[in-house]
Amino acid sequence: MILSGHSLIAGRPVVGDGKTAFGFNPATNEQLDPAYSLITEEQLTTATSAAADAYPSFSTLDPETHAAFLEAIAENIEAIGEDLITRATQETGLPTARLTGERARTTAQLRLFAAVVRQGDHRGIRIDPALPDRTPTPRADIRQRQIPLGPVAVFGASNFPLAFSTAGGDTASALAAGCPVVFKAHNAHPGTSELVGHAITKAVTDQGLHPGVFSLIYGPGASIGQALVADPNIKAVGFTGSQAAGTALTRTAANRPEPIPVYAEMSSLNPVIVFEGALTGPTANIDTLAQQYVAAVTGSSGQLCTSPGLLFAPTGDAGDKFAAAVNHAITTCAGQTMLTESIAGSWHTGTEALGSADGVTVLGQGADGQTHNAPAPAIYATQVKDFLTNEILHQEIFGAASLVIRYTTTEDLLTAITRLEGQLTATLHLTNHDYPTAAPLIPALEQKVGRIIVNGWPTGVEVGHAMVHGGPYPATSDTRTTSVGTLAINRFLRPVAYQNLPTELLPTPLHNTNPWHLNRLINGQPTAP
Amino acid sequence: MILSGHSLIAGRPVVGDGKTAFGFNPATNEQLDPAYSLITEEQLTTATSAAADAYPSFSTLDPETHAAFLEAIAENIEAIGEDLITRATQETGLPTARLTGERARTTAQLRLFAAVVRQGDHRGIRIDPALPDRTPTPRADIRQRQIPLGPVAVFGASNFPLAFSTAGGDTASALAAGCPVVFKAHNAHPGTSELVGHAITKAVTDQGLHPGVFSLIYGPGASIGQALVADPNIKAVGFTGSQAAGTALTRTAANRPEPIPVYAEMSSLNPVIVFEGALTGPTANIDTLAQQYVAAVTGSSGQLCTSPGLLFAPTGDAGDKFAAAVNHAITTCAGQTMLTESIAGSWHTGTEALGSADGVTVLGQGADGQTHNAPAPAIYATQVKDFLTNEILHQEIFGAASLVIRYTTTEDLLTAITRLEGQLTATLHLTNHDYPTAAPLIPALEQKVGRIIVNGWPTGVEVGHAMVHGGPYPATSDTRTTSVGTLAINRFLRPVAYQNLPTELLPTPLHNTNPWHLNRLINGQPTAP
Repeated sequence: MILSGHSLIAGRPVVGDGKTAFGFNPATNEQLDPAYSLITEEQLTTATSAAADAYPSFSTLDPETHAAFLEAIAENIEAIGEDLITRATQETGLPTARLTGERARTTAQLRLFAAVVRQGDHRGIRIDPALPDRTPTPRADIRQRQIPLGPVAVFGASNFPLAFSTAGGDTASALAAGCPVVFKAHNAHPGTSELVGHAITKAVTDQGLHPGVFSLIYGPGASIGQALVADPNIKAVGFTGSQAAGTALTRTAANRPEPIPVYAEMSSLNPVIVFEGALTGPTANIDTLAQQYVAAVTGSSGQLCTSPGLLFAPTGDAGDKFAAAVNHAITTCAGQTMLTESIAGSWHTGTEALGSADGVTVLGQGADGQTHNAPAPAIYATQVKDFLTNEILHQEIFGAASLVIRYTTTEDLLTAITRLEGQLTATLHLTNHDYPTAAPLIPALEQKVGRIIVNGWPTGVEVGHAMVHGGPYPATSDTRTTSVGTLAINRFLRPVAYQNLPTELLPTPLHNTNPWHLNRLINGQPTAP
Repeated sequence: MILSGHSLIAGRPVVGDGKTAFGFNPATNEQLDPAYSLITEEQLTTATSAAADAYPSFSTLDPETHAAFLEAIAENIEAIGEDLITRATQETGLPTARLTGERARTTAQLRLFAAVVRQGDHRGIRIDPALPDRTPTPRADIRQRQIPLGPVAVFGASNFPLAFSTAGGDTASALAAGCPVVFKAHNAHPGTSELVGHAITKAVTDQGLHPGVFSLIYGPGASIGQALVADPNIKAVGFTGSQAAGTALTRTAANRPEPIPVYAEMSSLNPVIVFEGALTGPTANIDTLAQQYVAAVTGSSGQLCTSPGLLFAPTGDAGDKFAAAVNHAITTCAGQTMLTESIAGSWHTGTEALGSADGVTVLGQGADGQTHNAPAPAIYATQVKDFLTNEILHQEIFGAASLVIRYTTTEDLLTAITRLEGQLTATLHLTNHDYPTAAPLIPALEQKVGRIIVNGWPTGVEVGHAMVHGGPYPATSDTRTTSVGTLAINRFLRPVAYQNLPTELLPTPLHNTNPWHLNRLINGQPTAP
């Protein structure tokens, strides 16, 4: 497919009236054709008003057409073939294997949401039948369902050009909920976005849906993003990116005449706690554990939301051996290309601040990579007391860097956990001998994170029904939900009740005949169709 | 019971270090003993830190103890006997029958939430079992549950001294979720609050719970409210009151270092649409419809969140007859005592502004009541064109006042609905001949309200599983939920995932043995215990 360099608004290519921007190969520092024309705020309203126009029909689609639409997007993405991986590699510097896996995750995610749409529990049907003979007052027939919030603005993430971008998790869950999507492409991978944007638009057309169901826009990052969130036709926002940008969008949304929810996934240190047993127990393998840690820190050049930025290791001999093994593992690593020159620059700033903080030493450092923007991964070391008192040690460094904190007692761990800000994940490495020590930490960790992992690593987020990719602020702007997994669909719904409506006026999924074969809560009892 | 005039913090009476305040009988303009001592911000932290201390044990209570606690509160409220109704009548001017009904609603609500706690679906258990043989990567065992957000601040509503006050809907749903509650009494009914506060505290003690599970505080309205919402130990807020106060609290919550959700139920005009058939059809009774409308406007002196502030009636003969019947019905009404002198004052200001607005006439007015603060109920009339252009006609007047808007076409109605702000309810009066006219209005109304009612009245909100008492801003600050009905428990929960945790570290409700007999979503399939 030849890239056009244009936005794709309600099915039509739109040449932006603003400046232009180019993709950029971070491995070679070369500009990539074509030029992408950026739209203005006036042009933006074409997309948001088309989304509002699409809402009435899209929000009431029958489950089968709706699910088939999501599946068609997946098929169309697969049909792009290797062009998609090639372009994504050029634009992000990410390895082919990683991007191939990410594509599989993207299409699996769309198909999982198709299954959710067919199953229909997200419609939240509740029926309290009339009780005309109740005393002292009769009860009217009251029915409840969840309806889509309205058009949703989705912002592409730099670090997942497929799975959290154009047809990624936020788009998939919003479309599954029945919300039209206006997607703001991340300017770091415009070509990848365009390829996927056409795949979605083709599915919209082929399924005969209103073209306003999906628009892909290119615009000047911050300003068009603010305008999009402020647009009165937009009713919710999905965002993955920095805390500064996420907080700015959240404030804009809160200060609108009609405030709207923002689901911003922003930053996380993803602490790992290594207990004594994981280093000294009968199944312990210190070298393997250190290699796994370094792999989690350096994979995708550390540019993962769940990359472990902190690791608590015990003081003493076993901890010393682990630190030595980490040193050994990291020194054999070479830097991998980071997503953009700017992100690599921020990594340098962040590691310089961390490395020069009081009480922080370099535990080990790899070699610079052979491409541009591929700094040497680095692991630092400190003590709990310094972690407790220095704000710099709590800043996320996006990229391959991590901090090993040596602790002595369980009390040290509890104090450090209490001092943490909100995180996406916490991970424990332990054996059954450590259970009594670890047990009291679980409730403390629940207050700080969205997911607790034992004897694994937080990277490689499973897309399923039970996953939570979320957590207390500032990990996300709204701790009541998740951006990965099927529960994410609930973010874009709200309840409406219908009292004493005749069938002729009642929405289809609430009819007595239950034509969509939905599970329903009748008089408070879960009832199969 | 002799009233103490003190706050009740974590089970102990606390004499406030601030000023004092008195209850006031609005029917006689007399001050009511005792003096209530107001706490300071320093004293407030005693309550919030006790709530934080109570969280670990209260949030993990077994369902039976938890449910029994809610039921014990209901029993203790009933045990107060007529003293409660007597004091509430003195403090609010509301009739005994209304308050007796409200008490029944309050205790029924607590018992309904006890049943929800025993049933357990709000725990949201999801299990995706491990798939060790999956390729290319195995899946770990992942489990999800909903946990309580933390201590909740609840603000008493002036207009429901029982059902939306100390042990009212917000308190009941927060306690049912497993969140300790710090309750800020409304200074308009301090004695009623104290009586119910003791009922809750006794239940806390009798069930052997941590005393920090509940605190009742008296303080200077706005300042202590802001301090409470800003307190870092508070993790969510339930509020019912004015748009100005609700918006101020929402902004404070959004600007905290850790923002928290605010569920503020603020204002609503509750439009009613009368179709031609309801006036001319074979079952039509214009006089009865007019009397019901006037009863809904004037009941509880119009001080209900769902009181109909707008009614759309057709132009032409039938509409004229309806208007005449409304005039007749309202002129025979006398004013009833309003809750406070200040609320009566706001009613006067609001009706003066509405009555003097361009294009607005008085349709009919009753007589002043025989007590203090009992202004004559009033109904005004206007045309759609004036409604569309004048902001004053969109302001809620809290009390017995309403505006009849005469419309000519369905297009008039659609335009007027589009112009509406968010509302709690919309009501349609019609016959089956009107269904084709009404059908296209339903999707438009869904975008504006939380509940649609046919051939009934929005007042008298049923507490059940299907009820939605919520709606788009500014009806509430968060359209994704309800403050009445069992769905309200979800406001105070957030999901946490557990990956590969051994049973020894896994929270009880997630154990394979399912000791709490919960419905669970296993591999995405609803599964009974």
